[in-house]
Amino acid sequence: MRTLKLTLSYDGTNYVGWQRQINGISVQQVVEEAFAPLMGGVAPTVAGAGRTDAGAHALGQVATVNTEIEISPVAVQRALNVRLPVDVRVMAVEEATPGFHARFHATGKIYRYRVITSQVMSPFDRNYAWHSPEPKKIDLMREAAALLVGTHDFASFQARGAYVSDTVRTIHSLELRHAGSEITVHCDGDGFLRHMVRGIVGTLAEVGTGLRPPSIIRDMIDARDRRAAGATAPAHGLTLIEVRY
Amino acid sequence: MRTLKLTLSYDGTNYVGWQRQINGISVQQVVEEAFAPLMGGVAPTVAGAGRTDAGAHALGQVATVNTEIEISPVAVQRALNVRLPVDVRVMAVEEATPGFHARFHATGKIYRYRVITSQVMSPFDRNYAWHSPEPKKIDLMREAAALLVGTHDFASFQARGAYVSDTVRTIHSLELRHAGSEITVHCDGDGFLRHMVRGIVGTLAEVGTGLRPPSIIRDMIDARDRRAAGATAPAHGLTLIEVRY
Repeated sequence: MRTLKLTLSYDGTNYVGWQRQINGISVQQVVEEAFAPLMGGVAPTVAGAGRTDAGAHALGQVATVNTEIEISPVAVQRALNVRLPVDVRVMAVEEATPGFHARFHATGKIYRYRVITSQVMSPFDRNYAWHSPEPKKIDLMREAAALLVGTHDFASFQARGAYVSDTVRTIHSLELRHAGSEITVHCDGDGFLRHMVRGIVGTLAEVGTGLRPPSIIRDMIDARDRRAAGATAPAHGLTLIEVRY
Repeated sequence: MRTLKLTLSYDGTNYVGWQRQINGISVQQVVEEAFAPLMGGVAPTVAGAGRTDAGAHALGQVATVNTEIEISPVAVQRALNVRLPVDVRVMAVEEATPGFHARFHATGKIYRYRVITSQVMSPFDRNYAWHSPEPKKIDLMREAAALLVGTHDFASFQARGAYVSDTVRTIHSLELRHAGSEITVHCDGDGFLRHMVRGIVGTLAEVGTGLRPPSIIRDMIDARDRRAAGATAPAHGLTLIEVRY
């Protein structure tokens, strides 16, 4: 048994997210189906490092698959890319230690979230950034962001209806870059709850417009209640940049 | 009678090009239809600075419309953007001298063409760049490009079946930028024949791969025959950046 590690980029616009769903086409499904012809027609399970939401994107999603096939990693990559739709690309295939698992062995992830604040958004950004034209004070947003860095219970930033036993996570860095009418949020952490980055960005935007003061972040963390934090920014502004091991 | 000057950005992926066609939806059609409710339900003629090909894009297409309506340019912009599909945006509306015409008064245009040479192309570039993975020598391409700059008869670079009486054009600059696995061609000229930029890029790519020597550009220009030049690069790599007046 071999374990192959895949690095995938995808434009999530036309997908229900990474994970297989009954209500539409997922990225996982198209990757598994692209594998099938290499494996005697049987689609294997391709385990992703994390779910990505419907409409969210990935530059460096990682997935693992266990297989008996004997073709080289580069030939696997080529065969998959021939079969995959053009909005999903296998950027690399590597041989991994047998049993290596994209999700269980991940030690961290980096996400990027793009916000466009101009009155009119470029058509080229429509599927890749959140159009939020209200003027925002970047300094206030950075002040709030600094309070989110570190190890905290992020229960208030978890999707409604998502219940995991342990909601403590560590954010290593939460950096806001500002260029022209774009604010880009870079979030590096050991792991993320469902909708956590989007909840953080929605909250930072509300701080930026003056709707809430930066110091409210402390109360939000203490509340451990989704209603305490700000709105969830839309999925299509979000991209999974990298998974760390 | 007023004349309004519109600056438009559009993702041309889902259009048959700028100009109205019977075989599909054009950008011109959707802009004209967005105007109709402002003009008592009658769509006006919106004159573009130039056709763009099916699948080609624009950051700064310019169009003019003559109208009797009395609302302000910014209100026109807002009304159009509410009605237009999200892949077409009106970036600016200005009052122009009555009779100003986007095409007849244009003195120059700048186009950009993106070529990706990596083995696998990012899914985010699939509609915006030509995937041409054969290794290319950028120095040879620049040598060829230099021979195209200036005033020449570009008949060899015109689309087959396109006949205009005067095929002499001036290219002010033809610059190749190289970063990672992307080659970006910036072309600034007084006007362009149909498919001319795409024919130039297709030819430069053939020079880059060693298929033809740079000096052949002189023969191509002298031939005044489409068959003398290289292949036409695909439309989706092309973006109209700016129209000059």
